[in-house]
Amino acid sequence: MTRSGTSDLYPTRGAGAAATLIPREHPTVWPSAYTGPASDGDLVMHDCNGYLKLPDLLTAGEVADHWDELGRLCTDPRVRADERTIVEPGSEDVRSIFEVHRLSDAVAELARDPRVAGRARQVLGSEVYLHQSRINYMPGFDGKGFYWHSDFETWHAEDGMPTPRAVSISIALTDNHAYNGGLMVLPSSHRVFASCAGETPDGHHEESLRSQQVGTPDRDTLRALTHRHGIDQFTGPAGSALMFDSNLVHGSGNNITPHPRSNIFLVFNSVENPLDEPYAAGRPRPEWVASRDATPLR
Amino acid sequence: MTRSGTSDLYPTRGAGAAATLIPREHPTVWPSAYTGPASDGDLVMHDCNGYLKLPDLLTAGEVADHWDELGRLCTDPRVRADERTIVEPGSEDVRSIFEVHRLSDAVAELARDPRVAGRARQVLGSEVYLHQSRINYMPGFDGKGFYWHSDFETWHAEDGMPTPRAVSISIALTDNHAYNGGLMVLPSSHRVFASCAGETPDGHHEESLRSQQVGTPDRDTLRALTHRHGIDQFTGPAGSALMFDSNLVHGSGNNITPHPRSNIFLVFNSVENPLDEPYAAGRPRPEWVASRDATPLR
Repeated sequence: MTRSGTSDLYPTRGAGAAATLIPREHPTVWPSAYTGPASDGDLVMHDCNGYLKLPDLLTAGEVADHWDELGRLCTDPRVRADERTIVEPGSEDVRSIFEVHRLSDAVAELARDPRVAGRARQVLGSEVYLHQSRINYMPGFDGKGFYWHSDFETWHAEDGMPTPRAVSISIALTDNHAYNGGLMVLPSSHRVFASCAGETPDGHHEESLRSQQVGTPDRDTLRALTHRHGIDQFTGPAGSALMFDSNLVHGSGNNITPHPRSNIFLVFNSVENPLDEPYAAGRPRPEWVASRDATPLR
Repeated sequence: MTRSGTSDLYPTRGAGAAATLIPREHPTVWPSAYTGPASDGDLVMHDCNGYLKLPDLLTAGEVADHWDELGRLCTDPRVRADERTIVEPGSEDVRSIFEVHRLSDAVAELARDPRVAGRARQVLGSEVYLHQSRINYMPGFDGKGFYWHSDFETWHAEDGMPTPRAVSISIALTDNHAYNGGLMVLPSSHRVFASCAGETPDGHHEESLRSQQVGTPDRDTLRALTHRHGIDQFTGPAGSALMFDSNLVHGSGNNITPHPRSNIFLVFNSVENPLDEPYAAGRPRPEWVASRDATPLR
Protein backbone atom coordinates (compact mmCIF):
# COMPACT_ATOMS: atom_id res chain seq x y z
CA MET A 1 0.00 0.00 0.00
CA THR A 2 1.40 3.40 -0.91
CA ARG A 3 -0.02 6.84 -0.50
CA SER A 4 1.06 9.98 -2.24
CA GLY A 5 -1.86 12.35 -2.45
CA THR A 6 -2.44 16.07 -2.69
CA SER A 7 -1.69 16.50 1.01
CA ASP A 8 1.86 15.22 0.53
CA LEU A 9 4.18 18.22 0.25
CA TYR A 10 7.07 16.01 -0.88
CA PRO A 11 5.72 13.64 -3.55
CA THR A 12 8.32 11.28 -5.01
CA ARG A 13 8.50 7.97 -6.92
CA GLY A 14 5.34 6.04 -7.63
CA ALA A 15 3.40 5.66 -10.88
CA GLY A 16 3.92 8.63 -13.19
CA ALA A 17 6.37 10.35 -10.82
CA ALA A 18 8.79 12.61 -12.65
CA ALA A 19 12.03 14.17 -11.44
CA THR A 20 11.25 17.73 -10.35
CA LEU A 21 12.52 20.26 -7.85
CA ILE A 22 9.92 21.19 -5.22
CA PRO A 23 10.50 24.16 -2.90
CA ARG A 24 10.85 23.04 0.70
CA GLU A 25 7.95 24.16 2.91
CA HIS A 26 9.53 23.48 6.28
CA PRO A 27 12.37 25.26 8.10
CA THR A 28 15.86 23.87 8.46
CA VAL A 29 16.45 25.36 11.89
CA TRP A 30 13.26 25.32 13.94
CA PRO A 31 12.27 27.93 16.55
CA SER A 32 13.90 26.65 19.68
CA ALA A 33 14.14 27.33 23.40
CA TYR A 34 17.16 25.05 23.62
CA THR A 35 20.54 26.54 24.20
CA GLY A 36 23.58 24.43 23.70
CA PRO A 37 26.84 23.92 21.96
CA ALA A 38 25.84 25.49 18.63
CA SER A 39 26.24 29.28 18.48
CA ASP A 40 23.74 31.54 16.75
CA GLY A 41 26.24 31.91 13.92
CA ASP A 42 26.52 28.13 13.60
CA LEU A 43 22.75 27.87 13.28
CA VAL A 44 22.62 30.57 10.59
CA MET A 45 25.33 28.74 8.63
CA HIS A 46 23.51 25.43 9.03
CA ASP A 47 20.28 27.02 7.83
CA CYS A 48 21.96 28.64 4.84
CA ASN A 49 24.17 25.77 3.64
CA GLY A 50 22.33 22.77 5.03
CA TYR A 51 25.37 21.53 6.92
CA LEU A 52 27.93 22.54 9.51
CA LYS A 53 31.46 21.25 10.02
CA LEU A 54 32.26 20.49 13.67
CA PRO A 55 36.04 20.35 14.16
CA ASP A 56 37.33 18.41 17.18
CA LEU A 57 33.94 17.10 18.27
CA LEU A 58 35.68 14.11 19.86
CA THR A 59 39.04 14.03 21.61
CA ALA A 60 41.82 11.78 20.35
CA GLY A 61 41.18 9.45 23.29
CA GLU A 62 37.49 9.16 22.47
CA VAL A 63 38.33 8.44 18.83
CA ALA A 64 40.69 5.66 19.90
CA ASP A 65 38.03 4.11 22.14
CA HIS A 66 35.39 4.15 19.41
CA TRP A 67 37.89 2.79 16.87
CA ASP A 68 38.60 -0.14 19.18
CA GLU A 69 34.86 -0.66 19.57
CA LEU A 70 34.45 -0.71 15.78
CA GLY A 71 37.19 -3.33 15.54
CA ARG A 72 35.43 -5.50 18.13
CA LEU A 73 32.08 -5.19 16.33
CA CYS A 74 33.51 -5.95 12.88
CA THR A 75 35.20 -9.13 14.06
CA ASP A 76 32.42 -10.39 16.36
CA PRO A 77 30.91 -13.44 14.60
CA ARG A 78 27.46 -12.66 16.08
CA VAL A 79 27.58 -9.12 14.70
CA ARG A 80 28.83 -10.30 11.30
CA ALA A 81 25.98 -12.81 11.07
CA ASP A 82 23.41 -10.18 12.11
CA GLU A 83 21.02 -8.87 9.45
CA ARG A 84 21.92 -5.36 10.61
CA THR A 85 25.45 -5.83 9.27
CA ILE A 86 25.77 -4.89 5.58
CA VAL A 87 28.73 -6.14 3.57
CA GLU A 88 30.33 -4.46 0.53
CA PRO A 89 28.93 -5.37 -2.89
CA GLY A 90 31.29 -7.96 -4.34
CA SER A 91 33.14 -8.82 -1.12
CA GLU A 92 32.62 -9.84 2.48
CA ASP A 93 34.05 -6.66 3.99
CA VAL A 94 31.74 -4.93 6.47
CA ARG A 95 30.27 -1.76 4.94
CA SER A 96 27.85 -0.68 7.69
CA ILE A 97 26.49 -1.91 10.99
CA PHE A 98 23.01 -0.53 11.67
CA GLU A 99 21.28 0.15 14.99
CA VAL A 100 24.74 0.24 16.44
CA HIS A 101 23.55 2.13 19.53
CA ARG A 102 21.83 -1.11 20.59
CA LEU A 103 24.97 -3.15 19.94
CA SER A 104 27.37 -0.78 21.66
CA ASP A 105 26.94 1.06 24.97
CA ALA A 106 29.68 3.47 23.91
CA VAL A 107 27.74 4.55 20.83
CA ALA A 108 24.51 4.80 22.82
CA GLU A 109 26.28 7.11 25.25
CA LEU A 110 27.77 9.15 22.41
CA ALA A 111 24.30 9.69 20.91
CA ARG A 112 23.04 11.09 24.24
CA ASP A 113 26.09 13.32 24.67
CA PRO A 114 25.14 17.03 24.86
CA ARG A 115 27.72 17.78 22.15
CA VAL A 116 25.68 15.59 19.82
CA ALA A 117 22.03 15.32 20.93
CA GLY A 118 22.24 18.89 22.24
CA ARG A 119 22.97 20.24 18.77
CA ALA A 120 20.16 18.14 17.29
CA ARG A 121 17.64 19.57 19.79
CA GLN A 122 18.78 23.10 19.00
CA VAL A 123 18.32 22.60 15.26
CA LEU A 124 15.04 20.70 15.42
CA GLY A 125 13.51 22.82 18.21
CA SER A 126 12.15 19.85 20.14
CA GLU A 127 13.03 16.68 21.95
CA VAL A 128 14.63 14.16 19.61
CA TYR A 129 14.95 10.41 19.20
CA LEU A 130 17.32 8.24 17.17
CA HIS A 131 15.76 7.49 13.80
CA GLN A 132 18.81 5.52 12.69
CA SER A 133 22.33 4.83 13.85
CA ARG A 134 25.15 3.08 12.11
CA ILE A 135 28.86 2.71 11.82
CA ASN A 136 30.14 2.99 8.26
CA TYR A 137 33.40 1.30 7.43
CA MET A 138 34.73 2.09 3.97
CA PRO A 139 37.68 -0.22 3.49
CA GLY A 140 40.83 0.87 1.68
CA PHE A 141 41.78 -0.27 -1.85
CA ASP A 142 38.27 -1.27 -2.87
CA GLY A 143 35.81 0.87 -0.89
CA LYS A 144 32.60 1.65 -2.74
CA GLY A 145 30.95 5.06 -2.42
CA PHE A 146 27.33 6.11 -2.19
CA TYR A 147 25.80 7.81 -5.24
CA TRP A 148 24.08 11.19 -4.80
CA HIS A 149 20.90 11.18 -2.74
CA SER A 150 18.87 13.07 -0.16
CA ASP A 151 18.31 10.90 2.91
CA PHE A 152 14.92 12.48 3.49
CA GLU A 153 13.75 11.37 0.05
CA THR A 154 14.29 7.78 1.10
CA TRP A 155 13.03 8.24 4.66
CA HIS A 156 9.86 9.90 3.33
CA ALA A 157 9.23 7.38 0.56
CA GLU A 158 10.23 4.20 2.34
CA ASP A 159 9.89 4.98 6.06
CA GLY A 160 6.97 7.42 6.12
CA MET A 161 8.87 10.35 7.66
CA PRO A 162 6.36 13.21 7.12
CA THR A 163 8.65 16.24 6.97
CA PRO A 164 12.41 16.92 6.82
CA ARG A 165 12.60 17.72 10.56
CA ALA A 166 15.58 15.45 11.07
CA VAL A 167 19.30 16.01 11.19
CA SER A 168 22.31 13.74 10.87
CA ILE A 169 25.67 13.92 12.60
CA SER A 170 28.51 11.99 11.01
CA ILE A 171 31.56 11.64 13.24
CA ALA A 172 34.87 10.73 11.59
CA LEU A 173 36.83 7.89 13.23
CA THR A 174 39.58 8.10 10.60
CA ASP A 175 41.14 11.07 8.88
CA ASN A 176 39.01 12.19 5.96
CA HIS A 177 41.27 13.16 3.09
CA ALA A 178 40.09 14.59 -0.21
CA TYR A 179 41.11 11.34 -1.85
CA ASN A 180 39.72 8.53 0.28
CA GLY A 181 36.05 8.72 -0.51
CA GLY A 182 35.10 11.63 1.77
CA LEU A 183 31.53 12.85 1.81
CA MET A 184 30.64 15.41 -0.86
CA VAL A 185 27.68 17.72 -0.32
CA LEU A 186 25.77 20.06 -2.62
CA PRO A 187 25.53 23.24 -0.51
CA SER A 188 22.01 24.64 -0.07
CA SER A 189 20.46 21.70 -1.92
CA HIS A 190 18.40 21.05 1.23
CA ARG A 191 16.20 24.03 0.31
CA VAL A 192 14.54 22.12 -2.52
CA PHE A 193 13.12 18.63 -2.55
CA ALA A 194 14.50 16.65 -5.47
CA SER A 195 11.57 14.42 -6.30
CA CYS A 196 12.66 11.19 -7.98
CA ALA A 197 11.21 9.12 -10.78
CA GLY A 198 10.83 5.35 -10.51
CA GLU A 199 8.95 3.00 -8.23
CA THR A 200 10.34 1.47 -5.05
CA PRO A 201 11.02 -2.25 -5.55
CA ASP A 202 9.75 -4.55 -2.80
CA GLY A 203 12.45 -5.13 -0.21
CA HIS A 204 14.48 -2.28 -1.75
CA HIS A 205 16.58 -1.71 1.36
CA GLU A 206 18.16 -5.14 1.02
CA GLU A 207 19.94 -3.78 -2.05
CA SER A 208 19.90 -0.01 -1.50
CA LEU A 209 21.97 -0.15 1.68
CA ARG A 210 24.75 -1.64 -0.42
CA SER A 211 24.25 0.27 -3.67
CA GLN A 212 21.32 2.62 -4.23
CA GLN A 213 19.49 2.52 -7.58
CA VAL A 214 16.10 4.15 -6.92
CA GLY A 215 15.68 7.46 -5.08
CA THR A 216 18.59 9.30 -6.65
CA PRO A 217 18.14 12.67 -8.38
CA ASP A 218 18.47 12.64 -12.17
CA ARG A 219 21.49 14.10 -13.96
CA ASP A 220 19.81 17.35 -14.99
CA THR A 221 18.85 18.00 -11.37
CA LEU A 222 22.38 17.27 -10.17
CA ARG A 223 23.84 19.55 -12.85
CA ALA A 224 21.45 22.34 -11.84
CA LEU A 225 22.16 21.99 -8.11
CA THR A 226 25.92 21.80 -8.66
CA HIS A 227 25.96 24.71 -11.07
CA ARG A 228 24.28 26.94 -8.52
CA HIS A 229 26.34 26.23 -5.40
CA GLY A 230 29.20 23.94 -6.38
CA ILE A 231 30.39 20.94 -4.42
CA ASP A 232 31.92 20.92 -0.96
CA GLN A 233 33.85 18.00 0.42
CA PHE A 234 34.07 17.08 4.10
CA THR A 235 37.71 16.63 4.99
CA GLY A 236 39.30 16.75 8.41
CA PRO A 237 41.03 14.71 11.05
CA ALA A 238 39.48 11.87 13.02
CA GLY A 239 37.21 13.30 15.69
CA SER A 240 35.77 16.03 13.49
CA ALA A 241 32.15 15.76 12.45
CA LEU A 242 29.60 16.96 9.96
CA MET A 243 26.05 17.86 10.95
CA PHE A 244 23.72 17.95 7.95
CA ASP A 245 20.08 18.42 7.14
CA SER A 246 18.09 15.31 6.25
CA ASN A 247 17.30 16.76 2.82
CA LEU A 248 20.83 17.76 1.80
CA VAL A 249 21.97 16.03 -1.40
CA HIS A 250 25.23 14.22 -0.77
CA GLY A 251 27.31 11.34 -2.07
CA SER A 252 30.79 9.87 -2.00
CA GLY A 253 33.26 8.42 -4.46
CA ASN A 254 35.12 5.18 -4.10
CA ASN A 255 38.34 4.69 -2.18
CA ILE A 256 41.36 3.03 -3.81
CA THR A 257 43.83 4.41 -1.25
CA PRO A 258 45.15 2.20 1.56
CA HIS A 259 43.37 4.46 4.08
CA PRO A 260 39.98 3.17 5.24
CA ARG A 261 37.32 5.74 6.03
CA SER A 262 35.06 5.12 9.00
CA ASN A 263 32.44 7.16 10.76
CA ILE A 264 29.64 6.89 13.27
CA PHE A 265 26.44 8.12 11.71
CA LEU A 266 23.59 9.24 13.98
CA VAL A 267 20.22 10.47 12.73
CA PHE A 268 18.02 12.47 15.06
CA ASN A 269 14.36 12.97 14.28
CA SER A 270 12.03 15.37 16.07
CA VAL A 271 9.57 13.64 18.40
CA GLU A 272 6.96 15.83 16.69
CA ASN A 273 7.76 14.17 13.34
CA PRO A 274 7.14 10.47 14.06
CA LEU A 275 7.03 7.96 11.23
CA ASP A 276 3.78 7.19 9.46
CA GLU A 277 3.08 4.72 6.66
CA PRO A 278 5.60 4.91 3.76
CA TYR A 279 4.71 7.56 1.19
CA ALA A 280 5.98 5.53 -1.76
CA ALA A 281 6.75 1.96 -0.78
CA GLY A 282 4.79 -1.17 -0.14
CA ARG A 283 5.81 -1.74 3.46
CA PRO A 284 7.97 0.08 5.99
CA ARG A 285 11.61 -0.86 6.30
CA PRO A 286 12.70 -2.76 9.42
CA GLU A 287 12.99 -1.04 12.80
CA TRP A 288 16.79 -1.31 12.69
CA VAL A 289 16.89 0.98 9.64
CA ALA A 290 14.12 3.34 10.73
CA SER A 291 12.99 3.34 14.35
CA ARG A 292 9.27 3.68 15.06
CA ASP A 293 9.89 4.27 18.76
CA ALA A 294 9.78 8.06 19.17
CA THR A 295 10.56 8.04 22.90
CA PRO A 296 12.69 11.13 23.59
CA LEU A 297 16.38 10.53 24.03
CA ARG A 298 17.51 11.51 27.51
CA MET B 1 57.40 -16.11 -26.18
CA THR B 2 58.42 -14.38 -22.99
CA ARG B 3 61.83 -13.67 -21.64
CA SER B 4 62.74 -12.72 -18.13
CA GLY B 5 66.28 -13.81 -17.44
CA THR B 6 69.12 -12.79 -15.20
CA SER B 7 69.96 -9.86 -17.46
CA ASP B 8 66.54 -8.27 -16.84
CA LEU B 9 66.92 -5.61 -14.15
CA TYR B 10 63.16 -5.25 -13.79
CA PRO B 11 61.68 -8.78 -13.63
CA THR B 12 57.90 -8.89 -13.21
CA ARG B 13 54.99 -11.30 -13.73
CA GLY B 14 55.62 -14.70 -15.25
CA ALA B 15 55.79 -18.12 -13.64
CA GLY B 16 56.78 -17.90 -10.00
CA ALA B 17 56.97 -14.09 -10.00
CA ALA B 18 56.34 -12.61 -6.58
CA ALA B 19 55.54 -9.05 -5.60
CA THR B 20 58.79 -7.43 -4.50
CA LEU B 21 60.36 -3.99 -4.48
CA ILE B 22 63.52 -3.77 -6.62
CA PRO B 23 65.81 -0.73 -6.38
CA ARG B 24 65.83 1.21 -9.64
CA GLU B 25 69.17 1.03 -11.46
CA HIS B 26 68.61 3.87 -13.92
CA PRO B 27 68.43 7.64 -13.38
CA THR B 28 65.23 9.65 -13.49
CA VAL B 29 66.81 12.75 -14.97
CA TRP B 30 69.54 11.80 -17.45
CA PRO B 31 72.72 13.77 -18.10
CA SER B 32 71.66 16.24 -20.74
CA ALA B 33 73.05 18.93 -23.02
CA TYR B 34 69.51 20.16 -23.69
CA THR B 35 68.39 23.42 -22.24
CA GLY B 36 64.76 24.27 -22.26
CA PRO B 37 61.72 25.26 -20.32
CA ALA B 38 62.51 23.23 -17.17
CA SER B 39 64.77 24.98 -14.67
CA ASP B 40 67.50 23.19 -12.76
CA GLY B 41 65.24 23.35 -9.70
CA ASP B 42 62.40 21.75 -11.65
CA LEU B 43 64.68 18.89 -12.65
CA VAL B 44 65.81 18.32 -9.08
CA MET B 45 62.19 18.21 -7.94
CA HIS B 46 61.28 15.82 -10.74
CA ASP B 47 64.20 13.59 -9.84
CA CYS B 48 63.29 13.61 -6.15
CA ASN B 49 59.52 13.18 -6.34
CA GLY B 50 59.11 11.50 -9.72
CA TYR B 51 56.76 14.19 -10.99
CA LEU B 52 56.46 17.90 -11.58
CA LYS B 53 53.34 20.07 -11.71
CA LEU B 54 53.33 22.49 -14.64
CA PRO B 55 50.82 25.29 -14.00
CA ASP B 56 49.51 27.17 -17.04
CA LEU B 57 51.23 24.97 -19.61
CA LEU B 58 48.48 25.86 -22.10
CA THR B 59 46.66 29.15 -22.48
CA ALA B 60 42.89 29.33 -22.09
CA GLY B 61 42.58 29.70 -25.86
CA GLU B 62 44.64 26.58 -26.49
CA VAL B 63 42.55 24.64 -23.98
CA ALA B 64 39.36 25.72 -25.76
CA ASP B 65 40.74 24.62 -29.14
CA HIS B 66 41.78 21.21 -27.84
CA TRP B 67 38.46 20.80 -26.04
CA ASP B 68 36.62 21.44 -29.33
CA GLU B 69 38.90 18.93 -31.02
CA LEU B 70 38.07 16.35 -28.34
CA GLY B 71 34.36 16.95 -28.93
CA ARG B 72 34.80 16.40 -32.68
CA LEU B 73 36.77 13.20 -32.13
CA CYS B 74 34.31 11.75 -29.60
CA THR B 75 31.34 12.27 -31.90
CA ASP B 76 33.02 11.25 -35.17
CA PRO B 77 31.48 7.88 -36.11
CA ARG B 78 34.73 6.76 -37.76
CA VAL B 79 36.67 7.50 -34.57
CA ARG B 80 34.05 5.80 -32.39
CA ALA B 81 34.21 2.67 -34.54
CA ASP B 82 38.02 2.66 -34.50
CA GLU B 83 39.76 -0.01 -32.41
CA ARG B 84 41.89 2.77 -30.91
CA THR B 85 38.80 4.16 -29.16
CA ILE B 86 38.17 2.55 -25.76
CA VAL B 87 34.73 2.81 -24.15
CA GLU B 88 33.91 2.76 -20.44
CA PRO B 89 33.26 -0.62 -18.82
CA GLY B 90 29.49 -0.98 -18.60
CA SER B 91 28.57 1.84 -21.00
CA GLU B 92 29.28 3.23 -24.45
CA ASP B 93 30.91 6.46 -23.26
CA VAL B 94 34.34 7.11 -24.73
CA ARG B 95 37.05 6.53 -22.12
CA SER B 96 40.21 7.00 -24.20
CA ILE B 97 41.25 7.56 -27.80
CA PHE B 98 44.73 6.18 -28.47
CA GLU B 99 47.31 7.30 -31.05
CA VAL B 100 45.44 10.57 -31.06
CA HIS B 101 48.43 12.40 -32.58
CA ARG B 102 47.70 10.51 -35.80
CA LEU B 103 44.01 11.40 -35.65
CA SER B 104 44.50 15.07 -34.80
CA ASP B 105 46.97 17.54 -36.28
CA ALA B 106 46.46 19.76 -33.25
CA VAL B 107 47.62 17.04 -30.87
CA ALA B 108 50.54 16.15 -33.14
CA GLU B 109 51.61 19.80 -33.04
CA LEU B 110 51.18 19.94 -29.27
CA ALA B 111 53.46 16.91 -28.83
CA ARG B 112 56.22 18.66 -30.84
CA ASP B 113 55.79 21.92 -28.93
CA PRO B 114 59.03 22.93 -27.12
CA ARG B 115 57.01 23.38 -23.90
CA VAL B 116 56.23 19.67 -24.08
CA ALA B 117 58.83 17.76 -26.13
CA GLY B 118 61.49 20.19 -24.89
CA ARG B 119 60.92 19.15 -21.28
CA ALA B 120 60.96 15.47 -22.26
CA ARG B 121 64.35 15.87 -23.99
CA GLN B 122 65.74 17.65 -20.94
CA VAL B 123 64.65 14.88 -18.60
CA LEU B 124 65.63 11.95 -20.82
CA GLY B 125 68.89 13.49 -22.05
CA SER B 126 68.35 12.49 -25.67
CA GLU B 127 66.11 12.85 -28.67
CA VAL B 128 62.64 11.46 -27.98
CA TYR B 129 59.76 9.86 -29.84
CA LEU B 130 56.10 9.31 -28.95
CA HIS B 131 55.70 5.93 -27.34
CA GLN B 132 51.98 6.49 -26.82
CA SER B 133 49.46 9.29 -27.08
CA ARG B 134 45.87 9.42 -26.01
CA ILE B 135 43.02 11.61 -24.95
CA ASN B 136 41.32 10.45 -21.76
CA TYR B 137 37.75 11.44 -21.22
CA MET B 138 36.38 10.58 -17.79
CA PRO B 139 32.68 11.31 -17.99
CA GLY B 140 30.75 12.81 -15.10
CA PHE B 141 28.34 10.84 -12.88
CA ASP B 142 29.73 7.42 -13.74
CA GLY B 143 33.42 7.85 -14.61
CA LYS B 144 35.59 4.89 -13.69
CA GLY B 145 39.11 5.41 -12.35
CA PHE B 146 42.33 3.55 -12.94
CA TYR B 147 43.65 1.38 -10.11
CA TRP B 148 47.23 1.90 -8.88
CA HIS B 149 49.96 0.98 -11.32
CA SER B 150 53.37 1.96 -12.69
CA ASP B 151 53.17 2.53 -16.45
CA PHE B 152 56.69 1.24 -16.90
CA GLU B 153 55.75 -2.10 -15.35
CA THR B 154 53.24 -2.62 -18.15
CA TRP B 155 55.44 -1.12 -20.87
CA HIS B 156 58.31 -3.38 -19.80
CA ALA B 157 56.23 -6.55 -19.43
CA GLU B 158 53.92 -6.13 -22.40
CA ASP B 159 55.74 -3.78 -24.81
CA GLY B 160 59.39 -4.70 -24.23
CA MET B 161 60.54 -1.26 -23.05
CA PRO B 162 64.02 -2.08 -21.65
CA THR B 163 64.48 0.67 -19.05
CA PRO B 164 62.36 3.41 -17.44
CA ARG B 165 63.85 6.11 -19.68
CA ALA B 166 60.44 7.49 -20.58
CA VAL B 167 58.34 10.33 -19.25
CA SER B 168 54.66 11.21 -19.50
CA ILE B 169 53.03 14.61 -19.71
CA SER B 170 49.33 14.77 -18.87
CA ILE B 171 47.68 18.05 -19.85
CA ALA B 172 44.34 18.90 -18.21
CA LEU B 173 41.57 20.03 -20.57
CA THR B 174 39.09 20.38 -17.70
CA ASP B 175 39.56 21.67 -14.18
CA ASN B 176 40.92 18.91 -11.95
CA HIS B 177 39.21 19.12 -8.58
CA ALA B 178 40.03 16.93 -5.61
CA TYR B 179 36.64 15.28 -6.06
CA ASN B 180 36.31 14.43 -9.75
CA GLY B 181 38.70 11.56 -10.10
CA GLY B 182 41.96 13.50 -10.31
CA LEU B 183 45.22 11.63 -10.64
CA MET B 184 46.80 10.49 -7.36
CA VAL B 185 50.51 9.79 -7.23
CA LEU B 186 52.74 8.10 -4.66
CA PRO B 187 55.67 10.53 -4.37
CA SER B 188 59.12 8.99 -4.88
CA SER B 189 57.65 5.60 -5.72
CA HIS B 190 59.52 5.82 -9.06
CA ARG B 191 62.75 5.04 -7.21
CA VAL B 192 61.78 1.40 -6.73
CA PHE B 193 60.36 -1.04 -9.23
CA ALA B 194 57.24 -2.71 -7.85
CA SER B 195 57.48 -6.13 -9.41
CA CYS B 196 54.06 -7.77 -9.80
CA ALA B 197 52.85 -11.32 -9.37
CA GLY B 198 50.62 -12.99 -11.95
CA GLU B 199 50.95 -13.88 -15.60
CA THR B 200 49.87 -11.65 -18.49
CA PRO B 201 46.75 -13.06 -20.17
CA ASP B 202 46.81 -13.24 -23.96
CA GLY B 203 45.34 -10.06 -25.45
CA HIS B 204 45.48 -8.44 -21.99
CA HIS B 205 45.34 -4.88 -23.37
CA GLU B 206 41.83 -5.47 -24.70
CA GLU B 207 40.68 -5.55 -21.08
CA SER B 208 43.42 -3.65 -19.24
CA LEU B 209 42.84 -0.38 -21.10
CA ARG B 210 39.33 -0.41 -19.59
CA SER B 211 40.05 -1.90 -16.20
CA GLN B 212 43.48 -3.22 -15.23
CA GLN B 213 43.69 -6.53 -13.32
CA VAL B 214 47.26 -7.75 -13.82
CA GLY B 215 50.31 -5.54 -13.33
CA THR B 216 49.14 -3.73 -10.23
CA PRO B 217 51.24 -3.67 -7.04
CA ASP B 218 49.90 -5.74 -4.16
CA ARG B 219 48.35 -4.17 -1.07
CA ASP B 220 51.39 -4.57 1.18
CA THR B 221 53.51 -2.76 -1.41
CA LEU B 222 50.97 0.05 -1.72
CA ARG B 223 50.76 0.38 2.07
CA ALA B 224 54.56 0.54 2.32
CA LEU B 225 54.92 3.14 -0.46
CA THR B 226 52.09 5.26 0.92
CA HIS B 227 53.34 5.04 4.47
CA ARG B 228 56.72 6.39 3.44
CA HIS B 229 55.74 9.38 1.30
CA GLY B 230 51.98 9.77 1.48
CA ILE B 231 49.69 10.50 -1.44
CA ASP B 232 49.64 13.61 -3.59
CA GLN B 233 46.74 14.52 -5.83
CA PHE B 234 47.05 16.50 -9.06
CA THR B 235 44.52 19.32 -8.93
CA GLY B 236 44.51 22.49 -10.95
CA PRO B 237 42.73 24.43 -13.64
CA ALA B 238 42.42 23.36 -17.25
CA GLY B 239 45.69 24.04 -19.05
CA SER B 240 47.87 22.88 -16.19
CA ALA B 241 49.86 19.69 -16.61
CA LEU B 242 51.68 16.97 -14.77
CA MET B 243 54.96 15.54 -16.00
CA PHE B 244 55.74 12.19 -14.39
CA ASP B 245 58.28 9.43 -14.56
CA SER B 246 57.27 6.24 -16.34
CA ASN B 247 57.81 4.25 -13.15
CA LEU B 248 55.79 6.45 -10.76
CA VAL B 249 52.94 4.56 -9.09
CA HIS B 250 49.67 6.40 -9.72
CA GLY B 251 45.93 5.80 -9.88
CA SER B 252 42.60 7.58 -9.81
CA GLY B 253 39.25 7.15 -8.12
CA ASN B 254 35.88 7.26 -9.83
CA ASN B 255 33.93 10.40 -10.63
CA ILE B 256 30.29 10.75 -9.56
CA THR B 257 30.29 14.55 -9.93
CA PRO B 258 28.71 16.21 -12.97
CA HIS B 259 32.17 17.47 -13.98
CA PRO B 260 33.94 15.35 -16.59
CA ARG B 261 37.70 15.11 -16.39
CA SER B 262 39.67 15.12 -19.61
CA ASN B 263 43.31 15.26 -20.44
CA ILE B 264 45.76 14.77 -23.27
CA PHE B 265 48.31 12.17 -22.31
CA LEU B 266 51.64 12.08 -24.16
CA VAL B 267 54.39 9.56 -23.47
CA PHE B 268 57.91 10.31 -24.62
CA ASN B 269 60.51 7.57 -24.82
CA SER B 270 64.22 8.07 -25.37
CA VAL B 271 65.37 7.07 -28.87
CA GLU B 272 68.13 5.20 -27.03
CA ASN B 273 65.51 3.02 -25.31
CA PRO B 274 63.62 1.48 -28.25
CA LEU B 275 61.17 -1.37 -27.68
CA ASP B 276 62.32 -4.95 -27.78
CA GLU B 277 60.31 -8.16 -27.37
CA PRO B 278 57.93 -8.12 -24.37
CA TYR B 279 59.60 -9.16 -21.12
CA ALA B 280 56.51 -10.92 -19.77
CA ALA B 281 53.83 -11.31 -22.43
CA GLY B 282 53.21 -13.60 -25.37
CA ARG B 283 53.18 -10.96 -28.09
CA PRO B 284 53.67 -7.20 -28.24
CA ARG B 285 50.66 -4.93 -27.98
CA PRO B 286 49.52 -3.10 -31.12
CA GLU B 287 51.47 -0.12 -32.54
CA TRP B 288 48.68 2.26 -31.52
CA VAL B 289 49.30 1.45 -27.85
CA ALA B 290 53.09 1.22 -28.04
CA SER B 291 54.88 2.63 -31.06
CA ARG B 292 57.83 0.68 -32.46
CA ASP B 293 58.88 3.58 -34.68
CA ALA B 294 61.64 5.33 -32.73
CA THR B 295 62.18 8.11 -35.30
CA PRO B 296 63.05 11.25 -33.34
CA LEU B 297 60.26 13.77 -32.97
CA ARG B 298 61.15 17.07 -34.64
